[in-house]
Amino acid sequence: MTKIGILGGGQLGRMLLQAAANYAAETHVMENDPHCPAASLCHHFHLGNIRDYEAVLHFGRQVEVLTIEIEQVNVDALEQLEQEGIRVIPKPAVLRIIQNKIHQKAFYQQNNIPTAPFRITQNRSELTECLEWLPAAHKLGVGGYDGRGVVILNQATDLAKGFDAPAVLEKKIEIEKEIAVLVAVGQSGETCTYPPVEMVFDPALNLLDYQVCPADIDTEIASQASALAQQLVTAFGSPGLFAVEMFLDRRGDVWINEVAPRVHNSGHHTIEAHYSSQFDMLWRILMGLPLGNPAAILPSLMMNIVGAAGYSGEACYEGLETVLRLPNTFVHLYGKKMTQPGRKMGHITLLGSEPSELQKTAEEIKSTLRVTAR
Amino acid sequence: MTKIGILGGGQLGRMLLQAAANYAAETHVMENDPHCPAASLCHHFHLGNIRDYEAVLHFGRQVEVLTIEIEQVNVDALEQLEQEGIRVIPKPAVLRIIQNKIHQKAFYQQNNIPTAPFRITQNRSELTECLEWLPAAHKLGVGGYDGRGVVILNQATDLAKGFDAPAVLEKKIEIEKEIAVLVAVGQSGETCTYPPVEMVFDPALNLLDYQVCPADIDTEIASQASALAQQLVTAFGSPGLFAVEMFLDRRGDVWINEVAPRVHNSGHHTIEAHYSSQFDMLWRILMGLPLGNPAAILPSLMMNIVGAAGYSGEACYEGLETVLRLPNTFVHLYGKKMTQPGRKMGHITLLGSEPSELQKTAEEIKSTLRVTAR
Repeated sequence: MTKIGILGGGQLGRMLLQAAANYAAETHVMENDPHCPAASLCHHFHLGNIRDYEAVLHFGRQVEVLTIEIEQVNVDALEQLEQEGIRVIPKPAVLRIIQNKIHQKAFYQQNNIPTAPFRITQNRSELTECLEWLPAAHKLGVGGYDGRGVVILNQATDLAKGFDAPAVLEKKIEIEKEIAVLVAVGQSGETCTYPPVEMVFDPALNLLDYQVCPADIDTEIASQASALAQQLVTAFGSPGLFAVEMFLDRRGDVWINEVAPRVHNSGHHTIEAHYSSQFDMLWRILMGLPLGNPAAILPSLMMNIVGAAGYSGEACYEGLETVLRLPNTFVHLYGKKMTQPGRKMGHITLLGSEPSELQKTAEEIKSTLRVTAR
Repeated sequence: MTKIGILGGGQLGRMLLQAAANYAAETHVMENDPHCPAASLCHHFHLGNIRDYEAVLHFGRQVEVLTIEIEQVNVDALEQLEQEGIRVIPKPAVLRIIQNKIHQKAFYQQNNIPTAPFRITQNRSELTECLEWLPAAHKLGVGGYDGRGVVILNQATDLAKGFDAPAVLEKKIEIEKEIAVLVAVGQSGETCTYPPVEMVFDPALNLLDYQVCPADIDTEIASQASALAQQLVTAFGSPGLFAVEMFLDRRGDVWINEVAPRVHNSGHHTIEAHYSSQFDMLWRILMGLPLGNPAAILPSLMMNIVGAAGYSGEACYEGLETVLRLPNTFVHLYGKKMTQPGRKMGHITLLGSEPSELQKTAEEIKSTLRVTAR
C-alpha cells in the first residue's frame, strides 16, 4: 500500500477518497476541521493547519506521496519535503507560481501563453493611473478563491472597489464563452487531455452555474484550446492534474484565464460521464500507474448545489426527492452540516446525448432544489 | 444526517461506503477485523463480532437504520432491535429464511416459486436412501458461502463427500445458463428490477468467472426471469436490495437457485454501467429516498480478481499496469493486504456495446493479471 497524503479535506478530497478505494493506497488527510467532508473517508485523519509550516512538514514526513486539494497550503514546507525525498505532486514550484495571480500572469507572458493584457497594481491609489485599462477585472495577487478576490472595474467611479494590495488589473476581453480543459501529466511525463467543457456562471454569485461537456464549439477551436492547455501545463514541468480555464473571445481566439494544479469543480462530470474520472486519473498519477482514458462515455451537464440566499444554519435539501426521481441524474452531497448563501453543498451530473434536453432538466432542477436551513 | 449501520466490513461494505458519500448519511460499520476493507471509509468503525448477540444489539442501538453486507449475522439481536424500533433492512425474518438453505427451499415451495426438486437430509447416512436423486447438489443448510458448503454428488461412490449435517439434496437441472436479477424494494413497497445478467463460473473454484449484462437470452425469458425474481422478493415482504440467482434450463424454463438479501457480486457492474448502481440503490432504500434508475448506460462485462493458486501472503498484482491501460476498463481493488488462492481481491468492469469484444478483452485480462504474493 502506497502512503499518500492529501492537504485539505473539502469536497475535492472527499471525492478523491471515494476514488482512492479502488487502489492499493493508504490515505492520509490533513485539515483543521475534524468534521470536514473528507475526514471520515481516509485511513488516517490528521488535525492540523495546512498553511502552517511545522504542521505540513510533520504530516508530509509520514507519507510517500503528497498532493493537495486546495492551493492555499504552506509551500515552504512542501519545498523542504521535496528536498527530503517526499514526492510532492504538483511540484511546490508550480504552487508558488499559481498561489499568486501576479506570478501566474508573468509566467504566461514568459512562456508565450496568450492571456488578457494586464498590469500590476501595488495598491488602490495606483488604479487612478489606469483609467485607460477599464473596463477591467481587478484580481488580488494572493488569497482569492471561488469568486472572492476578484472585482470588476467598469469606470472611474468603481476604482474605490479595487484592492489596496498587490493585484493584477486585467483588461476585459469580449468573452464569447468560458471553457476549461483538464490536463493530466503522469510521473514519467506522459500526458492526456479531457475534452473541453463549457462553463456558464451565475453572475450574482460569480460561481459556476452549470457546465456542459463537450463544449459547444468548433472542432478547430476545441483542438486549439486543448493544445494551449497542454502547452501551458508542459511549461510547468510537473506531474499532476491541472484544470485550465480559458476564455474564447468573439473573434474565435482562446486566452488562458487561470489554472488550478489539482482536481477541480470543472471536472466533476467526469465521475460518471468519462471512462477515467479526474479523481481516478489523479490516483493513477500519484501511484505512478498508467494514465486513464479521458474520453467521454456520454455527453453531460454538471451543476453545483449551493446554499440558497438568505439561509444559514443546518442544511435542508428541499426538493431533493423530486430530483432523485430523474432517470439520468447523479446527485452528490458533500456531507456539510451547515449551509450558507452560495456555499457549495454538492453537485449534480446529468447524462444524455441531447444537450438541449440536459439543459431543460437542469432548469427544472434549479427551480426544484433549494438548500435552506432548518 | 441519518445514522446508518452496516453489519460486516468486507468489499461489499467498502463499495457501499464509496456510494454513501453522495448522501447525507452518518455511517457506522461493525466487523471484528480493524483492517477490513470497509474500516477506513466510515464515520464510526466498531470492532465487534457480527454473530454475537450482545455485540449486534449494542451496535444496532446506536443507529437509526441497520443493514447487512453478509447474511451470517446474529438474527436474534436484529429481531430484538426491530422490536425496539430500529429499522432493519432487510427484515430479520427474511434473513432467518435465507440463512438456512432448508428454510429457503421450503419458502419457495410454499410460495409456488419454481425451484429444483429437492429433499432434506439430516445426516450423511440418509444419503444412501437417495440414490434415485443423483446426480444432485448437496447443500449444507447453514454456513455455506461462496462455493463452500456445496458438493456435487454424481453417483453412489460420491456419497461419502456429502454433508453429515442437515442439508438440501437438490436434483441436478440440465442448466443452459445461470442468470441473476437484482430487485430493489423501497421502504414504501415500490420496486424495480435490474436487467438480467448472465453468469459464467470457474468450474475449478466454483467462483464467478465473469458475467455479462445484458444476459444473452430471449426477451421473453428475460421478462419471465424478472417477473419471477420480483414475485419471490415480493413474497419476502421486506424492503431491501435482493440478488436473485436463477437457472435457465435447456427447455427454456427458469428456476430459482438462491437469493441474497443484500448487495451482491452479480451487481458490481452496475457501478459504472448503470444509472443507479446497486450500492446507490441500497442507500436510497435505507434513507427512504426514491428508488434510482436500474437501466444500463452501456452493456458490460464484470470479472472478479481472485488470488492465484499457489500463492498466500502479501498481495502483489502482476500485470496490473497493462490492464490499467485498457481504454474501457474499470479496476476495483478491495484493499486486502493478504492474498490466498481463490480469495476475492477485487473486480474489473468492462464497458462496451460489442459483447464479443468485451469477452475478448476479458480473456486478455485473464492471461495478464495475476494476484501472487511477495
